[in-house]
Amino acid sequence: MEPLEPKIGWGVLHLFYRVGAAARSDSAATEKQVVAAVESFEAQADGSQALVFSVLGHKADLGIMVLGPDLARLQAFQAELRATALEPLDSFVSLTELSEYTMNDDDERRRLEREGITGEAADTAIVAFSERMAKYRHDRLYPNLPRKRTICFYPMAKKRDVGANWFALSFDDRKRLMAGHGKTGRAYAGRVQQLITGSTGLDDWEWGVTLLADDAVDIKDIVYEMRFDAASAEYAVFGPFWFGLLGQPAAVLASVGLR
Amino acid sequence: MEPLEPKIGWGVLHLFYRVGAAARSDSAATEKQVVAAVESFEAQADGSQALVFSVLGHKADLGIMVLGPDLARLQAFQAELRATALEPLDSFVSLTELSEYTMNDDDERRRLEREGITGEAADTAIVAFSERMAKYRHDRLYPNLPRKRTICFYPMAKKRDVGANWFALSFDDRKRLMAGHGKTGRAYAGRVQQLITGSTGLDDWEWGVTLLADDAVDIKDIVYEMRFDAASAEYAVFGPFWFGLLGQPAAVLASVGLR
Amino acid sequence: MEPLEPKIGWGVLHLFYRVGAAARSDSAATEKQVVAAVESFEAQADGSQALVFSVLGHKADLGIMVLGPDLARLQAFQAELRATALEPLDSFVSLTELSEYTMNDDDERRRLEREGITGEAADTAIVAFSERMAKYRHDRLYPNLPRKRTICFYPMAKKRDVGANWFALSFDDRKRLMAGHGKTGRAYAGRVQQLITGSTGLDDWEWGVTLLADDAVDIKDIVYEMRFDAASAEYAVFGPFWFGLLGQPAAVLASVGLR
Amino acid sequence: MEPLEPKIGWGVLHLFYRVGAAARSDSAATEKQVVAAVESFEAQADGSQALVFSVLGHKADLGIMVLGPDLARLQAFQAELRATALEPLDSFVSLTELSEYTMNDDDERRRLEREGITGEAADTAIVAFSERMAKYRHDRLYPNLPRKRTICFYPMAKKRDVGANWFALSFDDRKRLMAGHGKTGRAYAGRVQQLITGSTGLDDWEWGVTLLADDAVDIKDIVYEMRFDAASAEYAVFGPFWFGLLGQPAAVLASVGLR
Amino acid sequence: MEPLEPKIGWGVLHLFYRVGAAARSDSAATEKQVVAAVESFEAQADGSQALVFSVLGHKADLGIMVLGPDLARLQAFQAELRATALEPLDSFVSLTELSEYTMNDDDERRRLEREGITGEAADTAIVAFSERMAKYRHDRLYPNLPRKRTICFYPMAKKRDVGANWFALSFDDRKRLMAGHGKTGRAYAGRVQQLITGSTGLDDWEWGVTLLADDAVDIKDIVYEMRFDAASAEYAVFGPFWFGLLGQPAAVLASVGLR
Repeated sequence: MEPLEPKIGWGVLHLFYRVGAAARSDSAATEKQVVAAVESFEAQADGSQALVFSVLGHKADLGIMVLGPDLARLQAFQAELRATALEPLDSFVSLTELSEYTMNDDDERRRLEREGITGEAADTAIVAFSERMAKYRHDRLYPNLPRKRTICFYPMAKKRDVGANWFALSFDDRKRLMAGHGKTGRAYAGRVQQLITGSTGLDDWEWGVTLLADDAVDIKDIVYEMRFDAASAEYAVFGPFWFGLLGQPAAVLASVGLR
Repeated sequence: MEPLEPKIGWGVLHLFYRVGAAARSDSAATEKQVVAAVESFEAQADGSQALVFSVLGHKADLGIMVLGPDLARLQAFQAELRATALEPLDSFVSLTELSEYTMNDDDERRRLEREGITGEAADTAIVAFSERMAKYRHDRLYPNLPRKRTICFYPMAKKRDVGANWFALSFDDRKRLMAGHGKTGRAYAGRVQQLITGSTGLDDWEWGVTLLADDAVDIKDIVYEMRFDAASAEYAVFGPFWFGLLGQPAAVLASVGLR
Repeated sequence: MEPLEPKIGWGVLHLFYRVGAAARSDSAATEKQVVAAVESFEAQADGSQALVFSVLGHKADLGIMVLGPDLARLQAFQAELRATALEPLDSFVSLTELSEYTMNDDDERRRLEREGITGEAADTAIVAFSERMAKYRHDRLYPNLPRKRTICFYPMAKKRDVGANWFALSFDDRKRLMAGHGKTGRAYAGRVQQLITGSTGLDDWEWGVTLLADDAVDIKDIVYEMRFDAASAEYAVFGPFWFGLLGQPAAVLASVGLR
Repeated sequence: MEPLEPKIGWGVLHLFYRVGAAARSDSAATEKQVVAAVESFEAQADGSQALVFSVLGHKADLGIMVLGPDLARLQAFQAELRATALEPLDSFVSLTELSEYTMNDDDERRRLEREGITGEAADTAIVAFSERMAKYRHDRLYPNLPRKRTICFYPMAKKRDVGANWFALSFDDRKRLMAGHGKTGRAYAGRVQQLITGSTGLDDWEWGVTLLADDAVDIKDIVYEMRFDAASAEYAVFGPFWFGLLGQPAAVLASVGLR
Repeated sequence: MEPLEPKIGWGVLHLFYRVGAAARSDSAATEKQVVAAVESFEAQADGSQALVFSVLGHKADLGIMVLGPDLARLQAFQAELRATALEPLDSFVSLTELSEYTMNDDDERRRLEREGITGEAADTAIVAFSERMAKYRHDRLYPNLPRKRTICFYPMAKKRDVGANWFALSFDDRKRLMAGHGKTGRAYAGRVQQLITGSTGLDDWEWGVTLLADDAVDIKDIVYEMRFDAASAEYAVFGPFWFGLLGQPAAVLASVGLR
């Protein structure tokens, strides 16, 4: 298939596999095929990345998160893995996207004013802010994922219940709620790297959340703490949670019996 | 079976398949059977169409949407595919249908009056409007689907909850809500082609929505934006979402390992 | 097993099957076994009937609805089919039953009075009404299903939610709601034949609804229209919908690959 | 494993099986193993009982309800059946238990007073009442199940919804609601034998309900009628319903293809 | 994979398996592999423990609960079991953790004051209390599970419904509700040992509850009684319940057909 690049952002696939009897009985060949597919995917030199992890518990044995600019190439990666003896289980399809609730220059200027910063000092601060935000926006659309020891993935949506309908709220109310949510996230800066991708029209949920951290306790704590944010407490619906141990592809594959 | 034509509209099947070990081990024969079934279906020269697509993620490998005037022929198509080594997964059964909420001549005349257009100018406009609507209605019942790069399909229903019961609303309230919904859809004209088909009594949901677009971002954006329309925010229930890459049958089949 | 006849009404089984690789590879033998089971079941000459249909979509390939006076004989039929290479999928178990909300002679007399019909004219009308209702009741308990081109089956229950609890309504309220529901049904007389059977204690839902019609549009329309009746809009919960194409057993079996 | 007897009551397993291709191809051996396991279980002479039934519909082919004083022996029975070619499907784990809402001597004395019975007449009545209740309690904990033609099993729980929270009601309110429920049950005395067993902490529901009757109409009617009791209408949540035909083990096994 | 130790607490896996035809046909080898994996896991001498149990009912045949300081070692254990002929079914992933609602020294001092204990007597009591709590906290993070005859496991979460939203309550309200819950638990001290582990971000529920008791009636009673605590009655959501018979690995494996 010809390349198929979204006009903005990258495609993301979270893929989960069972390493069943077929894969085990042909373990060396399967390992070689998976490593080859991953290496070939990352060799594109267009930012395409693949994270390989073992999954704790019986939801799956192996997980692979791939992201990159070409949806046709992502489908081809998926097809290469389908051609191995691995058994496909669950998956998630999304696109990287900007948040519509990100603070803008005006928000920042008002914040500075509240702190008594005006005039030239504010202008300088706004320039720095704009640069930070430009990098932040670029990193959300074209992320370069850090190598951490553990990964957590879960899909989510916002409620449309009588009495708790996110999509009936005004934009300002939603922005205010998301600001509180963001504050909790920033308290884990450096410990937990978060990537939120959009999936309306692409999969059964509205967003996918990928968390990367070296310590599982940080994963547990950030998800727990965020559950008390009003945006989550009142409006979030969560799908299944996947937790895995990241590593070099060969090491991860060996840990799930493929070597 | 003898032909079985609905008195109005066409039958529509959304069919999803796994390309498993059996199909892979007999990949050339399977490919030939699928292509033959699709070509024979489209050769009927009665408007029957087949869209073949790969599915992103593990919900399925291959999807085929077929539509046409004869339900017995649709069942025969389904049976031909069942006779291949493909494994059937999910599906959706529906009929094309008119919307009961479409604007009529009186609505248009009132709209023109609100814009100050009356008399002969209005009469001329109404004639043009009537012709546009006749074409619109014909295209809903007997659609000629454009060839785009991506497809999104999802079933939906309207809520019958205490406090949010679509079926307890008056016709006028429902028509007003659907008008807002339609406005969002028209903003994507040219980028997203939409076909809504009816499935009460035929499948578990009330409607099926098929979206065709060249850019996945447009799919994501239209579904996200519509979620804020009151008709969706308060009353819609959504089923699973399928997202796929369309193409010529042989190319799509090759991309899922059948060649 | 010895015969097991309910003290009133007949037993009904809706049985759904996959025609998988095993059945296909032994297609002639399977076809012969199914036809033999159906013919032997209908040969009982006690009113026992079997309707054979292909299923549109991937929920199943083949459906068989059997009904008759002896539950042990229905179990034996099910076991005969289980002994073929067909794979059992879903099913529904119910008994024919009278509706407790049917109009009685007093209801009819009041109705006549409202129309100004009294005295001897009313007496004559009541006699005719009583005869019609006796036949109606007999047909609900011991139905003779007409041969139509399509069949729709779905199970349903009534809500017991806070604010919408059917079982907390008075008998009069329920009777009034069901009367409105019946009126919608009668508008399709001649086009859609309906059979409602009871399944409390026998299967997961409270009733099963079987619709028979020559035109799929009538099936879609009656189910859609009834969704606006207050009895459905506020109180109904619907299970999965099955839609199939009816025919002579051999023709249907051929259409699903058994010949 | 060493015997493991609950300090009060017996263990109960409801076990459901598919008679698949493996069991059919080895039907005589499978039949022998099942009959041997059942006979050996009942030969314990400690009250242990096994009820064998065919299941109507495709939820299962065969059901076995076993109960007795030793949980380790019940596990051993389950393991013996697992060692046959039968395929395990669903199951339910519970313990027999007393109802906390049963009428006590004081309740009965008050009831007698309301009927004008006092003094010695009341004392005599209370003695008779106490003896009846002692037998009732013994039969609930150590039941001797009658041989009937049909069996219905379903698990249930009580709602903990906002506005309908059984576990937030006072004991007196719950006792009053259960008394109404009991009255409906007693109207079927002699026709329907009921056994309620407890499963909190043991399985996903709070109670299991086993109904035994010679006529399926009585099963359907009692479950339907009870749905209108306030205890059910407002507070009950029901799981799947299983309906089967009871008989001698060999006859039942023959009816599902094992002979 | 390199060791991966959470900064606080241990990792916990609840693993459930089917003993299918493959495992049965190779029963001695499977038994040997499982025993070896369990013995090697417990031989780490770092507190790592494995509890092996048969499961009553058809949810699984065999369950193993493993806990210890190294997540990579837990994954390796899971992979060793995956390399046997056992079929993985369900599972649960969590970390041991402290409760945020535990009584602190100030709570205890206030409690003593309410009982009229002040001055030196209170100081002495507080020292004892602090030591008890330090041991309690240590045992929650690094538990040494007692050997009992039966085990119950279930996951749970707290509601976020309109009108019953645990995460919208103040900390004080939650602490008060949990105190009532704790009181019920303490009434079973000596009979039921309870371990609550945290799973936000790691699995689909918020907590896992493991109960160990010699008598199944105590399991049933404590879960039933706790359902009336306001913290459970109004705010708890429960997942599936697993009930099993504990024993020495070889004895348990023999009881499920592996010997």
